[in-house]
Amino acid sequence: MDVSDLLTSAGINIAICVVLLSLYSILRKQPGNACVYFTRRLVSEPVRGTGDISCFERFVPSTGWIAKAWQATDEEILAVGGVDAVAFMRIVVFSIRVFIIAAVICLFIVLPVNYYGQDMQHKEIHSESLEVFTIGNVKEDSKWLWVHCLALYLISCSACVLLYSDYKSITKMRLAHITGSPPNPSHFTVLVRGVPWSPDNSYSNSVEQFFSTYYPESYLSHQMVYGSCTVDKLMKDAERMYRMLKSIDPRFLDRSLPYCIPGGAAHPFMVLNLRADSVSSSTSMDRLQSSQRRKECPAAFVFFRTRYAALVAAQVLQSSNPMLWVTELAPEPHDVYWSNLSIPYKQVWLRKITTLIASVVFMFLFLLPVTFVQGLTQLEHLDQLSRRVPFLKGILKQEFIHRVVTGYLPSVILMLFLYAVPPTMMLFSAMEGNISRSQRKRSACIKVLYFTIWNVFFVNVLSGSIIRQLTVFSSFKDAPTQLARAVPTQATFFTTYVLSSGWASLSCEIMQPFPLICNFFRKFILRTKVEPSSCALTFPHHTEIPRLLLFVHIGFTCSIMAPLILPFLLVFFFLAFLVYRNQILNVYVRKYESGGEFWPIVHNSAIFSLLLTQVIALGIFGIKRSPVASGFIIPLILLTLLFNEYCRQRFSPVFKRRPAQILIEMDQQDEQLGRKEEIRNQIRSAYFQNPIISHQVSINSNLPLSRNTSHHQGDEDNLHGLKSLKPFRNSTRSIR
Amino acid sequence: MDVSDLLTSAGINIAICVVLLSLYSILRKQPGNACVYFTRRLVSEPVRGTGDISCFERFVPSTGWIAKAWQATDEEILAVGGVDAVAFMRIVVFSIRVFIIAAVICLFIVLPVNYYGQDMQHKEIHSESLEVFTIGNVKEDSKWLWVHCLALYLISCSACVLLYSDYKSITKMRLAHITGSPPNPSHFTVLVRGVPWSPDNSYSNSVEQFFSTYYPESYLSHQMVYGSCTVDKLMKDAERMYRMLKSIDPRFLDRSLPYCIPGGAAHPFMVLNLRADSVSSSTSMDRLQSSQRRKECPAAFVFFRTRYAALVAAQVLQSSNPMLWVTELAPEPHDVYWSNLSIPYKQVWLRKITTLIASVVFMFLFLLPVTFVQGLTQLEHLDQLSRRVPFLKGILKQEFIHRVVTGYLPSVILMLFLYAVPPTMMLFSAMEGNISRSQRKRSACIKVLYFTIWNVFFVNVLSGSIIRQLTVFSSFKDAPTQLARAVPTQATFFTTYVLSSGWASLSCEIMQPFPLICNFFRKFILRTKVEPSSCALTFPHHTEIPRLLLFVHIGFTCSIMAPLILPFLLVFFFLAFLVYRNQILNVYVRKYESGGEFWPIVHNSAIFSLLLTQVIALGIFGIKRSPVASGFIIPLILLTLLFNEYCRQRFSPVFKRRPAQILIEMDQQDEQLGRKEEIRNQIRSAYFQNPIISHQVSINSNLPLSRNTSHHQGDEDNLHGLKSLKPFRNSTRSIR
Repeated sequence: MDVSDLLTSAGINIAICVVLLSLYSILRKQPGNACVYFTRRLVSEPVRGTGDISCFERFVPSTGWIAKAWQATDEEILAVGGVDAVAFMRIVVFSIRVFIIAAVICLFIVLPVNYYGQDMQHKEIHSESLEVFTIGNVKEDSKWLWVHCLALYLISCSACVLLYSDYKSITKMRLAHITGSPPNPSHFTVLVRGVPWSPDNSYSNSVEQFFSTYYPESYLSHQMVYGSCTVDKLMKDAERMYRMLKSIDPRFLDRSLPYCIPGGAAHPFMVLNLRADSVSSSTSMDRLQSSQRRKECPAAFVFFRTRYAALVAAQVLQSSNPMLWVTELAPEPHDVYWSNLSIPYKQVWLRKITTLIASVVFMFLFLLPVTFVQGLTQLEHLDQLSRRVPFLKGILKQEFIHRVVTGYLPSVILMLFLYAVPPTMMLFSAMEGNISRSQRKRSACIKVLYFTIWNVFFVNVLSGSIIRQLTVFSSFKDAPTQLARAVPTQATFFTTYVLSSGWASLSCEIMQPFPLICNFFRKFILRTKVEPSSCALTFPHHTEIPRLLLFVHIGFTCSIMAPLILPFLLVFFFLAFLVYRNQILNVYVRKYESGGEFWPIVHNSAIFSLLLTQVIALGIFGIKRSPVASGFIIPLILLTLLFNEYCRQRFSPVFKRRPAQILIEMDQQDEQLGRKEEIRNQIRSAYFQNPIISHQVSINSNLPLSRNTSHHQGDEDNLHGLKSLKPFRNSTRSIR
Repeated sequence: MDVSDLLTSAGINIAICVVLLSLYSILRKQPGNACVYFTRRLVSEPVRGTGDISCFERFVPSTGWIAKAWQATDEEILAVGGVDAVAFMRIVVFSIRVFIIAAVICLFIVLPVNYYGQDMQHKEIHSESLEVFTIGNVKEDSKWLWVHCLALYLISCSACVLLYSDYKSITKMRLAHITGSPPNPSHFTVLVRGVPWSPDNSYSNSVEQFFSTYYPESYLSHQMVYGSCTVDKLMKDAERMYRMLKSIDPRFLDRSLPYCIPGGAAHPFMVLNLRADSVSSSTSMDRLQSSQRRKECPAAFVFFRTRYAALVAAQVLQSSNPMLWVTELAPEPHDVYWSNLSIPYKQVWLRKITTLIASVVFMFLFLLPVTFVQGLTQLEHLDQLSRRVPFLKGILKQEFIHRVVTGYLPSVILMLFLYAVPPTMMLFSAMEGNISRSQRKRSACIKVLYFTIWNVFFVNVLSGSIIRQLTVFSSFKDAPTQLARAVPTQATFFTTYVLSSGWASLSCEIMQPFPLICNFFRKFILRTKVEPSSCALTFPHHTEIPRLLLFVHIGFTCSIMAPLILPFLLVFFFLAFLVYRNQILNVYVRKYESGGEFWPIVHNSAIFSLLLTQVIALGIFGIKRSPVASGFIIPLILLTLLFNEYCRQRFSPVFKRRPAQILIEMDQQDEQLGRKEEIRNQIRSAYFQNPIISHQVSINSNLPLSRNTSHHQGDEDNLHGLKSLKPFRNSTRSIR
């Protein structure tokens, strides 16, 4: 691939991006699409004028959204998206900063060294092969390799400094989030699982007995978790149908409804729902008791009087059998993943192992499409293909098609395959038994991250070069050398990958094609009224964080080997900055808040990328026979490892446990302000495993931390939905 | 090596063992050696009649000690050596049980299959090569390989069942130890490190302020840790001299003392000591305060009113900076490793990494002697040697010498080198910053274990076979196959290793040559009186556990490949059973108690050995082209992994944290019995960083859990001695 190929590819991609972004700026101005592009605003500010936009303006692309996204301050982002959103944007900002430094160093110092590395006649610049710009072009035994070594030192140091300051500020933000938020029920609540079964007592009685014996001063009350039964499932189906039908515009109901609904009126289901509610609450106490008994799970939310008491109860080992009375801090009410709470705790470890194995198997099965894609970038494979399928021969001969096939198609195919990954990993994470949505997303995020870095980076690097797959596993000592041989040759592929997959994915992200089509379908085919809250999505951390981190990884590893990739990466990150800010401000709603808990993943991944870059550099200096440069890399590797260990010691505990000091101070403050009683009442009603009741409330809810009891998640989170529908409000027991 | 070689080797070793054990039975009857062979008894029962043994009886070998060791019950061992001793003996019992099962299976079923595995003319049994008895003798594609597969299944299952029941019973014992012991100061005490420095406050005030603010109800008092200064060191030297001189028999003092002591009387140092004591306590309060201030370390023992409060304070994250106010449960008073307490907490992670690196480097540098040793077992190397050093030629030609050199010498050399390892690892563990002696020993135990398994097993296996060192690291996929090729060929070496190193190490253990020589030297050359408590050793877990586990490892990996090793191993473990019981009953004192905390190491190591055996079997069945047998091994590996994970979930948390339920119940019991005040007084005086005062008490102490304040450890533990000698009793501050 030469420079003109690259420019063709860049041209195609820029054109596509411009077209898509223009299309976006038009589509977002259509009032009908407001619930796709302004979901968050519609949910939080239900009555909102669409403004008087003239018909002409509505169909002219504009750049207003860019200005708005650019001008938003960090405080706005924090108010709108919480710490998670700010931490996410921090990944983008970190990448921009570090790659600006890297680009300056590499383009002005390393690139000329690479280009003039061999005594050769240079062709005209546009037909120059891209390989000329990589470190592969530097002569063996060259004296100029210290430039690369120095560049790597500078990049590593600046990356570490930036990582440190980011980790520090996000830790501070996380602590501020804990102290600054209004009294949060999750601070007072402990989730206990593995309640032992006893023939004399119900689970509920056991929980009450246990906590009033061992925590007599701080135990407030508890609330059992209920499993689902047939009646629940029927009610759930009924509710789903009700929701579906209710959302149909009443105007169309009589005219266009091709099927029959008993009652025919617009709101008979509301009545039905209320009746079901009244029936269940008027059932005789005895029957309710026995039915509750049958369905009680050995899990409960236990409420404590103070935050510190809850923290303590969550962190100590309760019983001498560690599989019983397992406590942990409860997730936020909106964050609870109810259906997993009924999983017996004894199964959890088994589920974790099973999903781990399943993910690994999935990761390796995915080699097949990747290998195919990789084959396309290599000419000899194309020749083989055209020999087997003769009619392709003519097409492939054409210069333009050829460029598209080698420069663009592989990335597109890979990207399409990659789209199937996050839902699969999300499914695995749900099966794993995670008790909260944020935990599930974090777990999926880690899986997707491993997956992408393995399948996009390593497999491409290793399968595309001298070494064939699977023989890779048999060699560890030579890994640096082999990577060093492979990475520069694969730099071309990564450049096109950034161009195609990177840029296109951002356009795709901002266009939201899937919700757009759904919206269109519902509006014009089904003619149902779309409730903004029912199609509100939470931020897809599990797809976007791995994507960004993959590009960070590619950026680091290619930086000194093939510096030409850096400008394209920078464009990607700038675009990402605008797109994600826009999406956070307008599209995604915040239903729960993990307080930036995913940051350690980001940090570790960046450190891993840095280390890999250094190991590859070690290999390259070995190949180029420059022992001095190799020698200088080893202390760099050690220093990076030490830096990582220091950060792990200094910051990461705060992301796993809440500091007692802060919680005690908050408790003391509550006491001084005399709002203890108020908080207690609030906690008792915070966790309800009951979507029917809560549904009516949730529609008009705006802030996730407000005290409504909504657990209705109309987004992709609902995949493994909410099981139990019956109102068990009366099952919350209090001992005083 | 053929059968007669093996029998020669066995003969030599049996003879040596018999001689050494007879010698032991004579030596132990000499009254002068009582302080070597009955140290524990002398310390716990100071006045003990040596019995009236006639002169003749004293010089006749007897087997009385064997009977006594055999007859001792588990309760006696528990009373004498605590849970640690019982758990240690459990390793031996586990090994005996599992290898009896393995021996029955392998000798009666697997061995005949191996022996008749090839269609060959068998020689006379005594000149048969040992290789004929290994799995290497089975034909490729043999139908009889399912026998090996079945044997492996049976061995794995029985090992897992035994491991499970042992883990369970030791967990139970540990819990009983926690509940059953008399009120233990360490249950009420938290060690806090990383006290932040403030210009206005002393560390002591900071600690008081912090804990009385955040734990107002449960905080009792605290006691600072003091660093050492010059005066301390001088006092320490003085004390050492005093101890040395005091131990000289007064009768010899005037006659034989070649140097001059001021005062000349037998006990001037007692006076001196008391005077020093009175001087320091009569110093004006101001000066004491300022000197204290100068030497205060940012670490303190904090005492709480209840066990539960201490547990909670130890387990929560105190501050939002995880490097400050780091709390953990304090070790037992005798277990505290004072000199490490003054290490700033910020250094600890760095020290851990450094010692890790140092241990790994040490592990690999050790390859050199091992390679040399391994060379000796191979004939071609011997030939080379005799060509280079001609005068050896004649000697090496002799049949007997040749047998000794190939069958015995290598093990002896390896063993001698291995003796240097535990002290080195102990040094590393001390530098690591462990705060208690038991933790240090456990850490050294893990290091020695890795070291022995790597250097004795892997390096021998891999360097001795086709593959040369270091190329080993480059291949992971083929590891099972390579191990499968190597292990059966190295079985001979391991058999001789068990014979020589194993048996001899036990004889050596019971003979205690080093203390014996020291005793002799002190008694007849220096003519000093030996204080039993000053030469009392604690049980050397860090050398004995890795040794046993190495033999367990060799036993498992060789079991189905080369079953001939099993009888020798069984003899080793039977002997170990007797020897260690004897040593626990008579020699080693119990100064502190970890409650069997090392058991998870044993469990994990056994599981690792099992898994490695299975992986090797997988490789062998691959080489022998028996896909069915290979296929059957894979589920076995998965099941073993699952079993291990289950045990980790079910038992290991109890070994890391104390269950709250139990502690709360103990607190309630104390309250009911009305002994809270008594316990509180006791705790306050439990931790003293002051060997001079405590020394007088410790001499007559017998039980480690008694309330004396001795920290004088006259054993190898004293290597990095006790720094501060001044009495800081008055520095224990109480807020009420």
